Amino acid sequence: MPTIVERFARLGTDHAPGQEVRQAHSAEDADLRGGTIAGTPVDFSHGDVNATAFAPTPGAFEEFVAGVHRGGSQAYTEYRGDAALRTLLADRLARFTGAPLSGADELIITPGTQGALFLALGATVNAGDRVAIVRPDYFANRKLVEFLGGVIVPVEMDYLSRDAGAGLDLGQLEAAFKSGVKTFLFSNPNNPAGVVYAPDEIARIATLASTHGVTVIVDQLYSRLLYAGSTYTHLRAAGIDAGQVVTIMGPSKTESLSGYRLGAAFGAAHIIDRMEKLQAIVSLRAPGYSQAVLRTWFAEPDGWLEGRIAAHQALRDDLLAVFNAIPGMRVRPPQAGSYLFPRLPRLGVSLHQFVRALRVQAGVVVTPGTEFSPDRTDSIRLNFSQEHQAAVHAARRIAEMVERYR
Amino acid sequence: MPTIVERFARLGTDHAPGQEVRQAHSAEDADLRGGTIAGTPVDFSHGDVNATAFAPTPGAFEEFVAGVHRGGSQAYTEYRGDAALRTLLADRLARFTGAPLSGADELIITPGTQGALFLALGATVNAGDRVAIVRPDYFANRKLVEFLGGVIVPVEMDYLSRDAGAGLDLGQLEAAFKSGVKTFLFSNPNNPAGVVYAPDEIARIATLASTHGVTVIVDQLYSRLLYAGSTYTHLRAAGIDAGQVVTIMGPSKTESLSGYRLGAAFGAAHIIDRMEKLQAIVSLRAPGYSQAVLRTWFAEPDGWLEGRIAAHQALRDDLLAVFNAIPGMRVRPPQAGSYLFPRLPRLGVSLHQFVRALRVQAGVVVTPGTEFSPDRTDSIRLNFSQEHQAAVHAARRIAEMVERYR
Repeated sequence: MPTIVERFARLGTDHAPGQEVRQAHSAEDADLRGGTIAGTPVDFSHGDVNATAFAPTPGAFEEFVAGVHRGGSQAYTEYRGDAALRTLLADRLARFTGAPLSGADELIITPGTQGALFLALGATVNAGDRVAIVRPDYFANRKLVEFLGGVIVPVEMDYLSRDAGAGLDLGQLEAAFKSGVKTFLFSNPNNPAGVVYAPDEIARIATLASTHGVTVIVDQLYSRLLYAGSTYTHLRAAGIDAGQVVTIMGPSKTESLSGYRLGAAFGAAHIIDRMEKLQAIVSLRAPGYSQAVLRTWFAEPDGWLEGRIAAHQALRDDLLAVFNAIPGMRVRPPQAGSYLFPRLPRLGVSLHQFVRALRVQAGVVVTPGTEFSPDRTDSIRLNFSQEHQAAVHAARRIAEMVERYR
Repeated sequence: MPTIVERFARLGTDHAPGQEVRQAHSAEDADLRGGTIAGTPVDFSHGDVNATAFAPTPGAFEEFVAGVHRGGSQAYTEYRGDAALRTLLADRLARFTGAPLSGADELIITPGTQGALFLALGATVNAGDRVAIVRPDYFANRKLVEFLGGVIVPVEMDYLSRDAGAGLDLGQLEAAFKSGVKTFLFSNPNNPAGVVYAPDEIARIATLASTHGVTVIVDQLYSRLLYAGSTYTHLRAAGIDAGQVVTIMGPSKTESLSGYRLGAAFGAAHIIDRMEKLQAIVSLRAPGYSQAVLRTWFAEPDGWLEGRIAAHQALRDDLLAVFNAIPGMRVRPPQAGSYLFPRLPRLGVSLHQFVRALRVQAGVVVTPGTEFSPDRTDSIRLNFSQEHQAAVHAARRIAEMVERYR
């Protein structure tokens, strides 16, 4: 068994989004090529909630204030979240996902979707259990399995060479399930690649999970921000047994409400029960007053979601135009969400050196692909929920840096 | 190794404070003696932040609003919390505890003190590790060790039969440390008993920890709410190596800020580092906007803390008068905090039946002593941060119920 020092050595956060400020100057800076490139700094590691087009949901702050005024009943909810709010949300989430949901038994409110992911894995993964993890996928997924002492069984996703679907290797997934995998965790749309699983991919996942008795945890954080021409399939409504699936969502991204730390997990009642027990010792509950903000979720003003999608789509297309003009760069147009995951041309420096140079010389923060898959030493992730003109200009600086470091 | 079902069976929350609403009616109700007793319902399971004398800290809400207006920089802090805020807090906590503290390296902001406890234990306890836990102590302590796969080594505390000090069995503690305990977790003042460790008890803990290389995690949640005549000793300033102690505090209780979900852990830099890595996969960070509220902590208006202590002390004394008049009831006057932990006279029903009867017949919610120690089947815990008159009346109803169920 690994020591605690060894266990934590695997949980590095130095290159995680938002942690760049902790990196000191380095000897590597001597290898920088050329000078700095002027331009408004852009931090693509997460969305900019100050961006005009991507402000927090209208009415969110007012609901928070109303929660503060309610006082004790809002500060001290049940561990799984305020009962009336759960009933309200269950109804909305059932309609959104296309399958029934009980607010009393099948839903828990959590501190962000990160909190939901931790609780869901903590409630299903025992030390030594085999867990299937997609490559690439959200960087915390593999770390959660590491912390819990599980065994990661990777499943590759060929997102780059196709036009539709996510490109998950379903043969590998079946082999993984046959090898004794008990839990399968994946994000849809995929973070970082922005691809959406096709209906037949989701149907196959449902069938395989049923056949092999695998519990599936699906992170649908970005499933509302769906671009024109894409079809979204909710796993929980795809014929899978309700006791085998937990769906995770939250208002931190599309709705720009990250500052309130809110998420939700819903599905298998016995897993939600365990998640509540775990939440009781991890953080007691999602922040009490913040929970009130969820009243605005799926109840935004008419046209609000459509406007948010349109603003993202216009920015996506402008950034794709810049990146597609770079010889040797490859990027799949995201079908949903606000992530771009371009594969860089061959460079004369390592990925981490390039990412560092981008920050130091071009004022551009991106996340290295290695956070999402150990073999993605050729890719960078950008969250493009940013001010439109600043983001496009920053993309041009990335293009200039690519030329400089070829 | 226990299965995941077995592991979660040990993490029951049915009798945990605040979860009483989930208990359905029961066949036991047939055994109730007599009718209901009228009076304002009082929930002693946690403090009442709506109570006039115990409202949230002045200015807390305004700091939250200022945080929302700062936007992205407040929503997306480093995982360990906003850097400027950590510097500010470290200075205040160093002065309060009497030992130096670096905001850069030795402090992490967490979702409540519960979050701090989870991260501190998660960062120090490996499966199979021996962990010393006091009986009685905060109910989550033993559950944290259970979840992490540690082995609980209990150390008894004879809080009831003395006038000063906590009454920890220091011989048992030494034996526990000699048996290979790696981590010792305790609360000071003790939750539930409200007793404060004497200077010689803290000195002995420091010496034993140094001798045996044990890491000590001390939950000082209530250390500001100290009653007249009591002396408080901060372990981190008691000669223990700075690398062996982590102190946990937060503004949820004395300051009534639980609705914002804030806590802090400070001490050994290598443990704080691990805690940040763990926080990155557990909840990313303490709620961003809420963090701003910590600017009010240890910076309250002149006289605010003294007033809060005086209001609690007056209520403590009135409740003690009611309980001391009950033949066979024994209760130690708390030296700090807002918990009372009376030992009941011998009753004709079980503790859980009596607690249930209190709720159903007398409108009084208390927490059974078994949450704090498996052998405390004779005690109940009350958080007396409540409206003064309502609390005293509720205590009289408890007295009446004791007579009824003898």
